[in-house]
Amino acid sequence: MTLPKEHMKHALQLAKKGVYSVAPNPMVGCVIVKDHRVIGEGWHVKSGHNHAEINAIEDVKKKHGTSSEEQLRGSEVFVTLEPCSSTGKTPPCSKALIKAGIKKVYIAQEDTSQEGLESLREANIEVEVGLLNDEAITLNTGFFTRINQGRPFVTCKIACSLDGGIALSNGESKWITCEESRENAHQIRAASDAILTGIGTVLKDDPSLTARIKNQDFIEQGKHPLRCVVDSNLKITGQEKILTDGHPTIIFTNKMLTEFDGENISTVAKPGDNNKVSLNGLLAHLGQMGINNLMLEAGPTLVDAMINEELIDKFIFYMAPKILGTGKLNFSKLEGSLKNLGTIALEVEEVEVIGDDLKVSMTPKYNRNEVK
Amino acid sequence: MTLPKEHMKHALQLAKKGVYSVAPNPMVGCVIVKDHRVIGEGWHVKSGHNHAEINAIEDVKKKHGTSSEEQLRGSEVFVTLEPCSSTGKTPPCSKALIKAGIKKVYIAQEDTSQEGLESLREANIEVEVGLLNDEAITLNTGFFTRINQGRPFVTCKIACSLDGGIALSNGESKWITCEESRENAHQIRAASDAILTGIGTVLKDDPSLTARIKNQDFIEQGKHPLRCVVDSNLKITGQEKILTDGHPTIIFTNKMLTEFDGENISTVAKPGDNNKVSLNGLLAHLGQMGINNLMLEAGPTLVDAMINEELIDKFIFYMAPKILGTGKLNFSKLEGSLKNLGTIALEVEEVEVIGDDLKVSMTPKYNRNEVK
Repeated sequence: MTLPKEHMKHALQLAKKGVYSVAPNPMVGCVIVKDHRVIGEGWHVKSGHNHAEINAIEDVKKKHGTSSEEQLRGSEVFVTLEPCSSTGKTPPCSKALIKAGIKKVYIAQEDTSQEGLESLREANIEVEVGLLNDEAITLNTGFFTRINQGRPFVTCKIACSLDGGIALSNGESKWITCEESRENAHQIRAASDAILTGIGTVLKDDPSLTARIKNQDFIEQGKHPLRCVVDSNLKITGQEKILTDGHPTIIFTNKMLTEFDGENISTVAKPGDNNKVSLNGLLAHLGQMGINNLMLEAGPTLVDAMINEELIDKFIFYMAPKILGTGKLNFSKLEGSLKNLGTIALEVEEVEVIGDDLKVSMTPKYNRNEVK
Repeated sequence: MTLPKEHMKHALQLAKKGVYSVAPNPMVGCVIVKDHRVIGEGWHVKSGHNHAEINAIEDVKKKHGTSSEEQLRGSEVFVTLEPCSSTGKTPPCSKALIKAGIKKVYIAQEDTSQEGLESLREANIEVEVGLLNDEAITLNTGFFTRINQGRPFVTCKIACSLDGGIALSNGESKWITCEESRENAHQIRAASDAILTGIGTVLKDDPSLTARIKNQDFIEQGKHPLRCVVDSNLKITGQEKILTDGHPTIIFTNKMLTEFDGENISTVAKPGDNNKVSLNGLLAHLGQMGINNLMLEAGPTLVDAMINEELIDKFIFYMAPKILGTGKLNFSKLEGSLKNLGTIALEVEEVEVIGDDLKVSMTPKYNRNEVK
C-alpha cells in the first residue's frame, strides 16, 4: 500500500514538470488514486491551459475509457495547491472534482482565499490540508513571494574564488569556476523568469544572458529569461548582444528614453535617489509583469546595492578552490564595518560539490545578526 | 560471520585511540580473531611502550587465562601496520606472533623494510597485505610524510569570511567563525604534534596556541602541541603567553640568540634568504624532532610564504557565512597573476557544515593546474 505521503511526493514531482513553462502561474501537480492504485495524473503546463486537476481527470478518462466515471467516483485526489473555485482563464477545478464524485482531497498548500477548500467541504468531500506543506511552499517560493510582497524572489548568483574574487586584477574572469558549475548556473537561469544585471557587466563582458541547457522540457516549452539591465544613465550603446539577439530585454533607467525600444526591447524609467534607478520600483515593476523568480548576476556595484536595500532572498555561491590573491575584483565592495556586517550575515542552507567547485546556497539574515 | 574487512576496520579504530599520545610513532591497532570471534585487541599507546600486537596478545592472556595459549594457536591477526622485526625500545612483534602460533596475519600497510613480513612468511605464517590500505595510510599521513620526506605533514587552518577575510579593517578578528568551528579546530590542534605561527600573530593577538578540548583521552594521555614561532629578527619580547605559560615553545630565528632559552623555551637559528628564516630548514628541524603533524595557524605573511614554497599539504578552511567587504585583511596577499594562480589551485576533499559555518578540506595541486 502506498502511503498518502508518497502520492503527494509524486504530485510534487509532476508539478515540477511545469518549471520551464508555467510562470507566472504556480507549479501544480495532481494524482488521482482509487483502491490504492494511481488511476490518473496531471500537472499544470502553462497559463491559460488546463489546471493540474483537470489534466488528471482527463488522464483517467483517457486510460479508463467507458469505466472512467466509475473509477473517479469515490477516488482520492492528491493536489499540491488548493483547487481553484473561481472561473479565470479556465473553469473552477473544485467544481470538476465535485462533479466527478471524488471522496477525499489531500492538499499540500492552501490558497489565501480558501474558497476552493470550502466549496469542496460544502459538497461533503473530505479534505486534508498540509501534507508535505513545506515542500509545496518551497516549490513555488517565487510565486508566493510575488503574491505576498508584489515582487519576485531574488536569487543572487556569485561565481568566485575561495577569497571572494570574481576577476583578476587584469580584468580576466573567464572562467574561474568549472564547466559543471556553469552548466548548473544555466539550469537556474532556465528556471528563472528574468535575469537582472548592471550596465557595467553588460559593457565589460557583453553577455547574452540566455539559458543554455540541453533539457528536453526546456527546449520544447521553455523560454529564455527576460533580461533586465540597470542602466541609470543609459550608457548602453545599442550594439550589445542583449539588444540585438532577438530575445526580450528591458532597460531600467533613471529618465524616460525610448530610443532603443522595439519589438523585444523596452525602456522603463524608475527614477530613484541620487540619479539611480529605484531598485524597489524595478522589482515592483517585474512583480506586476508576473515575474516570480529573478536571478541576479551582476558585479559588486549592483550586488552591493541590492544587499544594502535587503532585496536579495537567496545567495548561490559557486566557489572555485582557487586563491586569486591581491588585486582581484571582489564580489562585494561593501564597507567592512561591524554595523553592516550584521546586516549581511547569511545562513547556509545547502552545500554540494559540483565538479571541482563548491556550490553553497545561503539565506541572508537581514538585521538579525551581529558579528560575535 | 564478520568479514576480514570489518576486523581491519575495528583495528583501525583501535589505532586511533593513540592519536593524542603515540607520536612520534605511528598509530597502530591490532585485533586477534579465532573461529570468527575476537579473542583479543590492542593498540600502540606511546613510544617505548608495547606495540599493538603485544598488547593484543596480552589482552588474550588476560581474557582467556590458562586457555590463552590454545586460543592463540591457529588464530588470525589483523594489524594496521606491518609488525616490526627488529628490537628497538621493545622486542620484535613478528617473533611474538610466530611464538604464539598465529595462523594468518592480515596487514593493512606494509613497512618499507618488509622484514617483519618476510620473517612471518619464513615461519610459514600466511600473510595478506593491503586490506583497507588507503585508510591505513591516511591514518598515519603525518608519520609517513616524516619518514619519506624528512618533514612533518603541514595542515594550514584558515578561519575566514565568504570573501576570504580574516579580520576587519580595524583589526577586529575575534570571532569570525562560530563556537563549533573553533572547537573543531582545537581538536585538530590536539591531534597535531606542533603548531606553527608567525611573529605578527604572536605580537598582535598574544595567543596561547594550546589545545583546549574536553576529550578524556586527551586529558589523560595527550599533551599540548609544541608551539613554533617564525621570528626572523627576534621581535618577541619575552612577555608573550607562549613564553610564559610553562608549555614548550621554539622560536625560529635568522640569527643565533639564546636570551629566552629555558626549560621549555628554545631558540633555533635557521637562516635563509633575505634575512628570513629558512622554512625548509625549519620543517627539516621539526622532522628530526619527530614531529609528524604540523598545524599552520598564521596570518597572510607566513601563509603566503608557505604557499610560495609549496610546503602546505592540506588546507582546512572554516568559512563563516559572512561578508567582510572592503578594507578587510585577507588570508592571502599573494599577487593575483595567472602564473601563481596555477600553483595554488586546490582540490576539494571534503566539505561539511559545522554550526553556522562551512568546513572545507582541500589539497593543493602545486604546479599541476592552470586557471582555465
